[in-house]
Formats: sequence, C-alpha cells, structure tokens
Amino acid sequence: MARLRQLLPGAPEGEVWFGDDAAVVRACPAGPLLLLATDTVVGDLDADLSLTTLSDLGWKAMAVNLSDIAAMGGTPAQAVVSVVGLGPDDLERLYEGVVAAANEYRCPVVGGDLSAGRQIVVTVAVTGTVDGPPVLRRGARPGDAIWVTGPLGASAAGLRVLRARGLPDQRNEQPNGPGQPDEEEKALMAAHARPRPALAAGTVARRAGATAMIDVSDGLLADVAQLTDQSGVGFELEEVPVAAGATGEEALAGGDDYVLVFTLGPARAEPVRKAFAAAGLPGPWLIGGCVEDPSRHFLAGAPVQVRGWEHTF
Amino acid sequence: MARLRQLLPGAPEGEVWFGDDAAVVRACPAGPLLLLATDTVVGDLDADLSLTTLSDLGWKAMAVNLSDIAAMGGTPAQAVVSVVGLGPDDLERLYEGVVAAANEYRCPVVGGDLSAGRQIVVTVAVTGTVDGPPVLRRGARPGDAIWVTGPLGASAAGLRVLRARGLPDQRNEQPNGPGQPDEEEKALMAAHARPRPALAAGTVARRAGATAMIDVSDGLLADVAQLTDQSGVGFELEEVPVAAGATGEEALAGGDDYVLVFTLGPARAEPVRKAFAAAGLPGPWLIGGCVEDPSRHFLAGAPVQVRGWEHTF
Repeated sequence: MARLRQLLPGAPEGEVWFGDDAAVVRACPAGPLLLLATDTVVGDLDADLSLTTLSDLGWKAMAVNLSDIAAMGGTPAQAVVSVVGLGPDDLERLYEGVVAAANEYRCPVVGGDLSAGRQIVVTVAVTGTVDGPPVLRRGARPGDAIWVTGPLGASAAGLRVLRARGLPDQRNEQPNGPGQPDEEEKALMAAHARPRPALAAGTVARRAGATAMIDVSDGLLADVAQLTDQSGVGFELEEVPVAAGATGEEALAGGDDYVLVFTLGPARAEPVRKAFAAAGLPGPWLIGGCVEDPSRHFLAGAPVQVRGWEHTF
Repeated sequence: MARLRQLLPGAPEGEVWFGDDAAVVRACPAGPLLLLATDTVVGDLDADLSLTTLSDLGWKAMAVNLSDIAAMGGTPAQAVVSVVGLGPDDLERLYEGVVAAANEYRCPVVGGDLSAGRQIVVTVAVTGTVDGPPVLRRGARPGDAIWVTGPLGASAAGLRVLRARGLPDQRNEQPNGPGQPDEEEKALMAAHARPRPALAAGTVARRAGATAMIDVSDGLLADVAQLTDQSGVGFELEEVPVAAGATGEEALAGGDDYVLVFTLGPARAEPVRKAFAAAGLPGPWLIGGCVEDPSRHFLAGAPVQVRGWEHTF
C-alpha cells in the first residue's frame, strides 16, 4: 500500500483516510462525523467453503465490517452489499446470514449489486456514526495499559474443530456417541462460523477514554503490533485470556476473533472495569502495556515474534 | 431480487432502500440525507480485459458509482474501493484510473480493501449528498416529457471500434496510414474507456424539477422501461440523439453510456433548456413522453421491443 498512498491525497484536518479500521469523514461540511469502511470476503480464501455455509459467509461479510465500526467506538448505520458469483438460490442462502447480522446489529442493508463471476466475492461497505471523537489506532502512548474485550483464539480453535469434524450436515454421528461435539466444541465452531463484532464494548471503551483501538482480525500479536506501530510505541504483554478449548498459540496468532484491543491511560483501570460492568459486559482484560521503544515486542518477559493469521489454506 | 426483497425490511418514511440508483438514508436521525451506492466491475465480464487497460477499469469502477449519485441529482462525497485479484504493480495501474476519476469528480477515495482471488473484482461504494429531495426512478407521471442529457451509443460504438482495432499498444499501424483511427473513432473509444458520469447535468435536471431520473447503464430502452415501470407509466419515444459514429441500434440498446434520462412536467421545456444553457451544458434532448398505459412501449409511432446490453461477451 505504500506506493498507492503516494497516489492518494491526504485527509483534511479532522478526517482519517486509509490506515485505520474505518475512515472518518464528513459527508457535508457542517454534517456530523461519518465512519465508512469496506471489507471483502473471498470464497475459499477468507473462508473454506467446504466448512462454511453460505449463510455463515454472509454473516461473516457483515461482521467483519461491523467490527471495523466497533474498533472506532462507533455505531453502525447502514450497509450496502455486493455479491459476485452466486446464483439465485445460493444468493438467498447468503442473504439469510447477511440479514441476520444486519438485524442483530441494527445495520440495515439498504442497497447492493449482483454480478456473475468465477469466484464468490462478497463486499460490504458500512457507514457508522460516533457521538464523540472516534478512537484511532495511532493514539497509544508509552505507559498506556493494553486491554482486550474478550478471550482469544475461539475462531481458530473452532476452525480446527470443524476441520476435524466437518459441518453438521456432513457428520455421520450417533446421538450421544463419541462423534458428537461437546458444548465447548459447539461454542468454538459457532465463534468461527458467526463471529460477533464487539460493538457495545467498543462504545464503552471509547467513552471510558480509550487512547487507541483495533479489532483482532489478523491475530492478537499482529494487531497489537499494528496498533503500537501506528502509535510509535512498543508493547510488553503479560498474560492473554484464552477462550475455553483454544490453545495459547491460537489466542496469540489465530485471528478472526473480532475481539477489540484498546489502550488506556495508567490510572483508568478501575473506571473502565466499572464501565464494562455497568454495561453488562464481561471484562475487559488487562494484557500488558505500551513502552517507549517502538521496536520492543515482549510477551511474558521475553521477546516475541509477531505472527498472525495466514489468509490461505 | 424479488425473493431477496422479502428477506429485507422496508425503508422508513423519507428513505429509499434498494430499487433506485442509490439508497437515500439518514446516517443519524437529525443528520442530512445521505446517498449510498455500490457497484462492482468484474474483469472479463463488465470489461473485456484484452480491450481495457487496468487504469481504464479503475476509472470505470468509479464512474459507474458516480453515475448512480448523478442519477439522484446528487453530489459525490467519498468512495471506498475493494480490489480482488491484482498484484502490486497491476493494483497501482488500476488505482491510476481510480484516482483520476476521484480527482475529476471530487470524490476522494478514503478507504479500501485488498484481497487475493482468481478473478479481478473491483467494488466501489460511494456516498453523496443532495441539497434538496433526490430524484427517484418512480416519480414520472403520464404527460411528463422524457429527456436525455446527451447523445447515446458512443460506448457501444467505441467497443465496436476497439474490437476491430485493439488497444493502441496492440495496434500495428503506420502514422497517417489507413490503420490510424480518425478523431471520431478516438472519441468513441474514449467514451467506452472512460465513461463520464453526468454529475453536473443530474444536479441541473433535479433543480429544474425532474420528476424521475435514471442513468443509462443497460441501454436506453431498458433503462427508460425501468424508469417508466417503476413509475407505473408507459413511454412513447420519438427520436433519440445518436452519438457521431454510433448506429441507431447502439444508441437504443448499447448501454454503458451513463447519460441520464429524466422526466419533467409538460410545461417545463423552456426552463430546463435555459437551466442547461446557463450551466454551460449541452442539451438536454427531448426524446418522448410518458403515457398512462404502463404496457405501452412505443418508438417512432410503433411498438418497440425493450432490449439492452448483455453483460457477456
């Protein structure tokens, strides 16, 4: 993207173009701030279509975009959905998931486009609003604490379970037999199939004074490094909350969790915990802090290799 | 789309979701009206990649979206661009055209997404504003006159010339020799390669009282029928302005011209001509009128088969 950036003009004062989870713009000079994001899900690249239903693919295409709004501390407003490569019946299945996510997160689909094609491509663009300054990736300062809004690794663990078991209608299993996934495995597969954007947590974190925020799409370490790099600081992580049934490596590098990472001034632990509790939200979890040296990437007292989700199979 | 519509909730009063060139929404309750549109260009489907440069493909992806804003009488605000299936060098070529259109029509690209894939897919979403009620497709009444903002058929004729000659760097031609395209052919190829959204004309038509408007993407007859169908009226066309070098059939059914068709009350001919002249715009051209019987599709006094651009090669 570095060469592309040279082609693109810079944002005016008060707006953010490129480089964050969503763009921050004013649709008209005196109008309110608008968030604008787009993300594409490519069949068999972002989702293994032998392990993902079309309905779940539709949900995911919405969820990854809604998560971009969450990572700014915003509230989604509308979505438009472009679909390539699906016939009418498959399109309806995809839209079941699209509409389920749109309803769940109150982000109506107001327009779209359909095209033929040799590969399934679902591109969503979302608008959002924010009733105060949005939280950018670049605002973390040395000394800020690093928090996450949920345990990590569930999506990667869910994919691991799915790879072992197949989709429910592909399973040849006896009731209560050994082939039946247990509750924990079901929860992991659900976390992979229908990731939940942390919209409520993002707003609470913003109002509690978050200095920077990003969603975990590429993997915790990769996304923490993205946030701290853009802020010009380093990180020292201590312990990371791991989703039940996930491995430590899945929590650190699994990706597609759509948990939020945010930073907060050092004296803000008590207020942010109270704010999350008051909103009926679990957490947040303190996982480490920001340090002055931008090259310092530490986990549990030792240097750590930043690694993340590979978007290939 | 009919079955899909049943899955999708209806728009609240004052908003338009689906079915028009762009959606009309309010991003926040007290905020201004926002236009929101998305359109996808698929390589080798919407453009023959042996006859289209990547730069022109990028321009086209922007232009088709900007034309959706033009067809509402709006002004573009921002775009986000998602690209599938291009490596870094090709991406830069595509973005040359994207940015050229963004600059030309003052619609900055503020965000985007890049994905791998087996086919080139470029999806743009645009926002727009409108300083009055946007012009919908469904507002035409019996007795309204039908106007177009420019001559038609240039894009289809340009494609015909390109098919005969190939792209400039594929041509094996002598200076001033018989292989050299003349000025008219160059203009047609340019109209195909870099269609120009009629943004200024759309705003002038809206302010002059246009009752309905649509852009010509599928072909004049198909798009006039779309507008009159949605308005519950029929049409009687007389004569259609044909771009220099285009055939009558290319003008009627060629598509991809991105001229606007609009309807206007019967006593509005003089004011709209003056308004176009005052804005320094050519035209508009009166091509016919709306009639009460929605099944009546007439051209030059005889029934006409509605036909349009086939998006395949």
